Amino acid sequence: MRLSNYFLPILKENPSEASIASHRLMLRAGMIRQLTSGIYNWLPLGLKVLNNISAIVRDNMDKAGCLEVLMPCIQPVELWQESGRFDGYGKEMLRMKDRHDREMLFGPTNEEVITDIFRNNITSYKELPKTLYQIQWKFRDEIRPRFGVMRGREFYMKDAYSFDLDEESAVSSYNRMFRAYFNTFKQMGLNTIAVKADSGPIGGDLSQEFHVITDTGESAIFYDKKFDELSASGHLDFETMQSLYAAAEEKHDPTNCPVPADRLMAKRGIEVGQVFYLGTKYSEPLKAYVNNNKGERVLAVMGCYGIGVSRLIGAIIEANHDDRGIIWPESIAPFKVSLINLKMGDVLCETIAESFYQSLQNAEISVLYDNSTESAGSKFATHDLIGSVWQVVIGPKSAANNMVELKHRLRGEKLELTPESALNKIIGK
Amino acid sequence: MRLSNYFLPILKENPSEASIASHRLMLRAGMIRQLTSGIYNWLPLGLKVLNNISAIVRDNMDKAGCLEVLMPCIQPVELWQESGRFDGYGKEMLRMKDRHDREMLFGPTNEEVITDIFRNNITSYKELPKTLYQIQWKFRDEIRPRFGVMRGREFYMKDAYSFDLDEESAVSSYNRMFRAYFNTFKQMGLNTIAVKADSGPIGGDLSQEFHVITDTGESAIFYDKKFDELSASGHLDFETMQSLYAAAEEKHDPTNCPVPADRLMAKRGIEVGQVFYLGTKYSEPLKAYVNNNKGERVLAVMGCYGIGVSRLIGAIIEANHDDRGIIWPESIAPFKVSLINLKMGDVLCETIAESFYQSLQNAEISVLYDNSTESAGSKFATHDLIGSVWQVVIGPKSAANNMVELKHRLRGEKLELTPESALNKIIGK
Repeated sequence: MRLSNYFLPILKENPSEASIASHRLMLRAGMIRQLTSGIYNWLPLGLKVLNNISAIVRDNMDKAGCLEVLMPCIQPVELWQESGRFDGYGKEMLRMKDRHDREMLFGPTNEEVITDIFRNNITSYKELPKTLYQIQWKFRDEIRPRFGVMRGREFYMKDAYSFDLDEESAVSSYNRMFRAYFNTFKQMGLNTIAVKADSGPIGGDLSQEFHVITDTGESAIFYDKKFDELSASGHLDFETMQSLYAAAEEKHDPTNCPVPADRLMAKRGIEVGQVFYLGTKYSEPLKAYVNNNKGERVLAVMGCYGIGVSRLIGAIIEANHDDRGIIWPESIAPFKVSLINLKMGDVLCETIAESFYQSLQNAEISVLYDNSTESAGSKFATHDLIGSVWQVVIGPKSAANNMVELKHRLRGEKLELTPESALNKIIGK
Repeated sequence: MRLSNYFLPILKENPSEASIASHRLMLRAGMIRQLTSGIYNWLPLGLKVLNNISAIVRDNMDKAGCLEVLMPCIQPVELWQESGRFDGYGKEMLRMKDRHDREMLFGPTNEEVITDIFRNNITSYKELPKTLYQIQWKFRDEIRPRFGVMRGREFYMKDAYSFDLDEESAVSSYNRMFRAYFNTFKQMGLNTIAVKADSGPIGGDLSQEFHVITDTGESAIFYDKKFDELSASGHLDFETMQSLYAAAEEKHDPTNCPVPADRLMAKRGIEVGQVFYLGTKYSEPLKAYVNNNKGERVLAVMGCYGIGVSRLIGAIIEANHDDRGIIWPESIAPFKVSLINLKMGDVLCETIAESFYQSLQNAEISVLYDNSTESAGSKFATHDLIGSVWQVVIGPKSAANNMVELKHRLRGEKLELTPESALNKIIGK
């Protein structure tokens, strides 16, 4: 993409409404713009990131054998009355009436609708287990939306629902999803910790939350120091994670904690995912039965599993930035390369830049080619801000020797290389 | 995908609520399920088609130089009051109040929001022209939702908006988008006709609708017979399409028609897209100015361009089906191949089927492997219904000779071939 054709409204000043780094940087980098309280427009750079994250989530769900569906935003209230949640959900639910005066709502979550799909279409144990998921916009009318997309009202979420014949199989679905979450976050370059959690308005018997540890996290979490040790050395696997102590504040009892005080970490985390074992909490009121292999009607045993896709962007930036801007993990970066021509109009610079641009496109590497006439300083500030993995800088001096400067945004290292060597380094040859 | 792992709730009977073929077939093939009047759940097969269509739309928008953004479903009313459309929009607009009693709405279209984005972020002629688009769910509270996804209430739509410095450039944006539409529908295997149309509540001076001609179309359209002649011979190009007479009913004056009666066609069409030249209809009330190269503030000149993505599925099926089911155009098909094993449990059949399944996956060809124990008749009925481009049938008789049967869903031709030859034919070697 050539910058001259792109839409990247960079803000040079820090917007006053943003109190945390991710919110500030998403506004400054032209990723989002607030439409109204807690509701955001996604501009091209932000949408690219949202799509990259969705793709990783989708890929891991598909690999775990889940099937993608899509449920509508607007739901009828009757299913919520059937499950017993309608009256209790409170003001977080956005309610409305249609032209025929029927009560409707903008789905804050989808247990009712998915269970309705299940009961109307699946009748036999032969069709189980099944895990259905969607990535869809949801609405929760937060009393105080804040921190940009981290606590917005309209937000993008992956929600999955497992249906099994019995508890044992349901627990194994739960563990399969837990493992998929572990892999999903890892692929995004995030260190997460899974803590025991309250199940809240979703309900159910067992629940764990995945947290990214940062000082700006909204939740207090407590865990065994071994997590950090294993995580730092890259030895944290799924089984260990499940065996170590980790709890959200409401589940942590300081007077009765199995971890000795000198090994207990107290940190703040951003919740990016949650898994629930639901049992028959929804299948019972909604009468979601299947026939087992003896011809008996039994209630489906369920689990549900959420990932906050839009919120993840905030969490990733909180964990990956410096004073100058965002530092995208490679799997998430909207552009892998910022190609910066310092002297537009200079024939040699333009020739090298155009040829490099073409080579990157041929190699299917996403690139933003800065062909503006801004000053070098302004260009460096822009590209440090938007956080491409690599910056390729072309200026008249190095161009005269057929060289470019290659800079790695995270490691900060700068190398003077021929265009061919720079390209090979980016490709990873 | 193995059928045993998939979620494909086929209906053997025609559902009574469906009066047209596309609605009937989408329900029967397990693509969609109604949640409530005019609001649908998308099951895995339907979602795949929706994604395939979206990908073609997106690809053509990107090629036309448009930039993708994403605007939220829920909008504040203030922008609509500013544009003057709020009071006039009527009951088709789904309105609600949030917890702080602020009036909100579920966007039926996005001229206000995109113009707001524009005016807040683009100030100079140097940044023009710009065309921004999104593919997003919209809501129009139709008084009588019908025909399944063809006239639903919550629907998926691509909406694009062009911003130019002057009329001449805006007309060229309009023509560029018209051309992109022409290519988009062609790539979906659809013959469309562009008719002059009323601009309706969107407003503006010039508008054309793209129609798929079918007897079940909701609109009456009139056009020069030459369209059909050129279309049938594959000679219909963009320039010719723009030069020939074609009008929607409300724009057609029989007493003053330039086409002689013997060349005038009167048909029914399904509207799948519409392009509008808006001029300053929105930029003026919303004060969307840019500075021109003389430093003067001038109003942006706009156009807007819609494609009904979910509705397109209905239109494509209306144009591509027979008594037995759907016949997907190759670019849209959820599965290119149905691999049908007639005798599960038979070692030879399973070996050939598994190996064929693997080869298709290696070649990245989408395949549904029917590994069920249903009867041959039931399997054929299912796969004719869901309309994969090819059916590969493996039965004990042909398997004994290391042969498979290859059937083309559209052409009906059946060939007995070695697995290798069948694969090559599918790949197009």
